[in-house]
Formats: sequence, structure tokens, C-alpha cells
Amino acid sequence: VVSRLPAVGTTIFTTMSRLAQECGAINLSQGFPDFSAEDVLFERVAHWMRAGHNQYAPMAGVPALRQAIADKVRALYGASYDPEHEITVTAGATQALFTAVAALVHPGDEVIVFEPVYDSYVPAIELQGGIVRRARLAAPDYRPDWQAVRALLSPRTRMIMINTPHNPTGTVWTEADLNALAALTRDTGIIVVADEVYEHIVFDGVHHQSAALYPELAARSVIVSSFGKTYHVTGWKVGYVLAPRALMTEFRKVHQFNVFTVNTPVQLALADYMADASRHLQLADFYQTKRNFFRAGLAGTRFELLPCAGTYFQTARYTAISAVPDTEFVDWLTREVGVAAIPLSAFFGDGRDEKVIRFCFAKRDETLTAAFERLGRFC
Amino acid sequence: VVSRLPAVGTTIFTTMSRLAQECGAINLSQGFPDFSAEDVLFERVAHWMRAGHNQYAPMAGVPALRQAIADKVRALYGASYDPEHEITVTAGATQALFTAVAALVHPGDEVIVFEPVYDSYVPAIELQGGIVRRARLAAPDYRPDWQAVRALLSPRTRMIMINTPHNPTGTVWTEADLNALAALTRDTGIIVVADEVYEHIVFDGVHHQSAALYPELAARSVIVSSFGKTYHVTGWKVGYVLAPRALMTEFRKVHQFNVFTVNTPVQLALADYMADASRHLQLADFYQTKRNFFRAGLAGTRFELLPCAGTYFQTARYTAISAVPDTEFVDWLTREVGVAAIPLSAFFGDGRDEKVIRFCFAKRDETLTAAFERLGRFC
Ligand SMILES: CSCCC(=O)C(=O)O
Ligand SMILES: CSCCC(=O)C(=O)O
Repeated sequence: VVSRLPAVGTTIFTTMSRLAQECGAINLSQGFPDFSAEDVLFERVAHWMRAGHNQYAPMAGVPALRQAIADKVRALYGASYDPEHEITVTAGATQALFTAVAALVHPGDEVIVFEPVYDSYVPAIELQGGIVRRARLAAPDYRPDWQAVRALLSPRTRMIMINTPHNPTGTVWTEADLNALAALTRDTGIIVVADEVYEHIVFDGVHHQSAALYPELAARSVIVSSFGKTYHVTGWKVGYVLAPRALMTEFRKVHQFNVFTVNTPVQLALADYMADASRHLQLADFYQTKRNFFRAGLAGTRFELLPCAGTYFQTARYTAISAVPDTEFVDWLTREVGVAAIPLSAFFGDGRDEKVIRFCFAKRDETLTAAFERLGRFC
Repeated sequence: VVSRLPAVGTTIFTTMSRLAQECGAINLSQGFPDFSAEDVLFERVAHWMRAGHNQYAPMAGVPALRQAIADKVRALYGASYDPEHEITVTAGATQALFTAVAALVHPGDEVIVFEPVYDSYVPAIELQGGIVRRARLAAPDYRPDWQAVRALLSPRTRMIMINTPHNPTGTVWTEADLNALAALTRDTGIIVVADEVYEHIVFDGVHHQSAALYPELAARSVIVSSFGKTYHVTGWKVGYVLAPRALMTEFRKVHQFNVFTVNTPVQLALADYMADASRHLQLADFYQTKRNFFRAGLAGTRFELLPCAGTYFQTARYTAISAVPDTEFVDWLTREVGVAAIPLSAFFGDGRDEKVIRFCFAKRDETLTAAFERLGRFC
């Protein structure tokens, strides 16, 4: 079989979670909580199943959930998305990103991504015959360099994929960044795909800069978010997309022949659950406390903690501990220290090694404390 | 926006289900049951949610479900698929088909499909730059013509997509068909995608001819099935793929960046539920009774019922009732008679009108009886 994606192997998340399990390591690699969601959410799923709502939902999602999303987006960002034509529920944010690229990138089109880049973007682009252009987010602050981005623009630039709050670096883009992006793409026909799955996890009183806050930018943006990250159910695989009607029409053409639609009772349950806005509004505080706890717990180690303004990821430079490449370092950390993490090189096309690793702190305090103990002993 | 799929509109299933709802018509169009699954299945989902299994499943699916699938496939078809490398759980059969095409069809490759063809195949192929070649299944028996298929073969033929039991016609392919397919593709490098989502719905003592029954064919086949059809939960969107390791490796490269994985508690619940094989083994009897009931109910009308050997669809020619095109006929049927159906022209690339429509009989007897009453009055 001639591979369409010869460079693709098993994702770093699968690899590290498997290694963590094999070694009995504390798994701070793949991003997911080790605590449970609220029983009331499960109760709602059970309710809708028992009430007999187990057949196909409408292709774009159940109306109640699309309305709840529209209400949230209006309340938070002052943006109006029509649930009928401009909101689609997806089988997770990954499917939303894949589908947006498949629907909108033609073979030969150029797509700009920011490196370190979440691992699904590049294969999604290359599978459609798109050409990847990489802008660098440079350590230690990992901010976009808009002049460098401008230099990447060409008449073939079709799309720019952004991600704020940013996985894996935990940076949060500013109003100036979004304005720069808007200026850069003005009158170009470039589509922006904004991966905002950590929109509710931003710290220190800073506000998430959604593309939805910038009407001119929003008019050419496909915005992606996730319920898994917000409600502690990453394994449910439900996300959503916001886009102006012309873009959403194209998105849905692919969506309907990719997954068609998403689990019905789960959608209905999420619609119920979203009605209480405190559930997503309190998430930032919840994770800020975790971030502070995690940083304090590593204060006694030789890790150099980089800034963490959002997401549930903390990056750390380990040059004071070891000089080996980051893949070797996480291997050692998992096997010998008993704590799994993700090497940042996995997010660079050329495997660039900045001697930085990523920890996930979406864990119970006991889990984090156990990790501190192990890391404190060796690092 | 320049569309990548200019010919694609809203699916016929969405269109007809929406029209049915608007008109208060009995919806025998889109294929889904109007009765519930068993409470014990819902109970299992609730159990696994409450037990805290709500984070990412392994990319290929939870091990217990992959093992249960392997056991079923061995018991029914005598075929051995390794759960670790040859079975993947998908977000429904549609996603499985889309992903198989995306992973295996290169731009310029030719793919043979059989018309009438399920509506997702052609857009999936064209999106990847594949070239669609159509073999005709001719009314009224809709059997494949293997000489005609042979004539479509070329050095660029990369894939043949088959579907048995067949949606929309309800035909079931024979041992001779599968042997012909095996002979035709021998030593060619052609990949077979076998859509077998109605594998458990075959009537009159006939056996489903899975590609898994034919080792030589299975060695170049990607086999797709569905839990939604088998367990009366089409809205849960869970299916699975069987393929030899080399093909599955390519499948998973795309799968992991398309949906990554599938709802965890639902997968665990399905694994539990599959343990009782009577649940899928009794499905054929259950639907055969429905089919007989449905055919008897329409006996007094002027519909000419075509053979129905499997699936939960009954096709009918309406030439004794009306001479209008099938799209107009179903429109009239939905609005005036109050029964929605699918026009077969929706499954032909050129909109070919054979004056045949498709009814779904996966409905409670009361629903079907109400439909008989309406159809009996007008038809
Ligand atoms: C889809 S598994 C990876 C989860 C995640 O987003 C991460 O760890 O970065
Ligand atoms: C994905 S909605 C269509 C359901 C179905 O398979 C059919 O009606 O043929």
C-alpha cells in the first residue's frame, strides 16, 4: 500500500499514555482530567437515553444544543451566530479541524500554521494536498511574530490556523495579536481557522480573545471549540464549530459525509448542562488554582517553568537537569522517575529540540502531589 | 468561497425527514427505528459514566469492545482479526467509509461503485481527487453484472466499494458474487471496501456473505459495520472497521487525525451488550416479521413491491399510481398522503428516475399500520 501520509506514525499522545501505563507512571502526558465530571451531567444523558432519544440527530446538531451555544457565544463575545446556518456540533474538536481543512483547502493551497503546532493540523492539510507554511512561536514566550507571518503570505495562501489559548505552550494571544491577524488578512480571501478549545481556561484575569470578538475577522473565521475540555469529559468527543453561513455551507458538505451527526442523548444532555453558565465561567478559577499548585509543587526542582497563561498545560525547560534530547528525557522521566510528559519536539515538523516538555495539570491534587514527590527526588 | 464539492447539497435524508416533520407525515424516509433499544443498554452507559470512564479511549477503541468484535466475527464468519492491529472503532459507519477512502484513495485513482449507491460514497471519493466509475445494479433485481464491472477495470482502479445487504435496494449478494469479486481483483492490488452495516438483517434463511468469509478477499478488504443498525441506536454513531494490518495502519493514520477516538462509556456499554450474541442473532427474525407485515400491509395498494432480501428498506415501483418523477412522487406522498419515503433517483449520479421509492420499515407496528391506512386510501 502506498501511504498517503508516509510521515505519520502513532500520535505522541497514544505513545506516551501507553508507555505511562506500561511503566505505572503518573500520566501527565496526554491532556485529560483524572477527576470526574458531575453526576448531574451523566444523569441527563441517562434521562435522554431512557426517554428514547437514540436515533439520528439533525445533521448540524440538536436544535437545543445549537441554541445553547449561540446563547453562550452572544453572552461571552457579543457575537450573533444563527443556530440554523452558522453553528454545527461535531464529533470533537479534532473532527471539526479536520473537516474545516477538508472542506476549504484545495490541493496546492497554502496554509499557515504556528509552530509548535498541535499534531493533527499538518496531516489534515497534507492529506488534502495543501502546502504547509510554518510561522515560529519562539521560546520562552512563544508569541507570534506578525512580520514573519506577513512574509509567509502569498497569493496561494488560503488559510491560517491559529490556536489560543495555545496547546502545548499555554500562551494566550492578545487583542494586538487578533488585530494584527485581522489587518493581515483584510481583503485577501484568507480563511482563519481558530482553535479555541481552551477558551474557558485563561488565568490571572486576562480575557480570552476569541475571533468571535472581532466582527471583521469573524466574518472569515471558522471557530472551533470543545465540550470535552470544558466539562471534564474528553472521552465523549463532542465539539462545535461557528462560522458565517458561506463557510459553514462548505463545512457541512464535508461534515455530512464524514460523520453525518453526533451522539443524540449526549447532545441533549450538554444542552441542559450548558444552561448553568457558572459551569464554564468558573473553569478558569478552578484551573488557575491547579496551575498555581503545580508550579509551587515544582518550585523545589531544577525545572525552569515557562509562563502559563491558559490551558491545562505547563511547559518546563529541563536544561539544568539533563542535556539529552527531549524525547529521551521524557522516556527517562516516564521509566525511571515515574512521571509521563510530552516532549515539545513532537509539535515541530523538523523535530526541533528546545529541551522543553509539557505537563498536564488537569489532575487531582493527590495525583499532582505524588508527581511532585517523584520529580522532587530525581529532578 | 470556491466549493470543493460544488455538486453537493443537503442529503436526501435530511431533506425528507425535515419535510416529513413539517407536514406531520409518517416518516418512512430516513432509515432509523422509531422504537427504543433495551433499557439494559442505557443502564450500561450510565454505569460506565458514573464509574468515571469519561476520558479519551485508546485511539483504536476500548480493548473490551475490540475483543467483543473479534469474538463475534470469528463466531459468525470464522475469520480472525487481531484486536490490536486489525479492528478500529469508528464514529459511525459513515466516518469509517469516509476515512477508508481518505486513507487509501490517491488523487487520480479510480474507484468503482455500484449504482444505486449510498449517498456518501461519491462525495468522499471526489473530495480526495478520486475518479468515480459506476457499475449499474439494474431493476428489478438489482444484481451486479460482473462482466460490466470487469469492463470498468483499468490500471488506475484503486478501490471497489460494495454494499451488501444493499441500501437502498434490499438485495443481498451471493456466494457467486463474492467469488466473482475475488476473482476480478486477484493480483491487482485493488482494495475492496465492504459496507456491511446491515449484516445481521438478512431474511428467509439466507446467510450474509461477508467479505470476512473469503480469506483471499478479506486480505484486501476493509469491512465496515455499525452498532446503530444492529442495536436500534442509530443516533449513537458508533461503528467499526476490520482490515488486515497493512490497510489498517493507513486507515488509522487518518482516523487518528479525523476523530481520534469514540465516546468511551458508549464503547464500554456496547462491549457488555455484545456479550449476549442473541441480540444480534435474533435481529434477522425480528426484521423479517416487520418486512412481511409491511409487504402484507401494502398488498392492497397499486405499489409494485420489489424483492427485499435484507436491510430494513422496502423498494416499490409506483407506475400504476402515477407517472411523475420519483422526487415529485415522494413530495406528493409526504404532503398529501402523509407518508414520507426516499426517491431512488437520489442514489444515482445522473438522477436516473426508475419510478421507484424506498420505504423504511424499522417502525412499530402501529406506525406501519397508520401508514397502510394512509397509503391504502390514496395509492
Ligand atoms: C486527542 S489526544 C490529545 C489530547 C490533547 O489535546 C493533548 O494532550 O494535547
Ligand atoms: C445518515 S442518515 C441516513 C440513514 C440511512 O442510512 C438511510 O436512510 O439510508
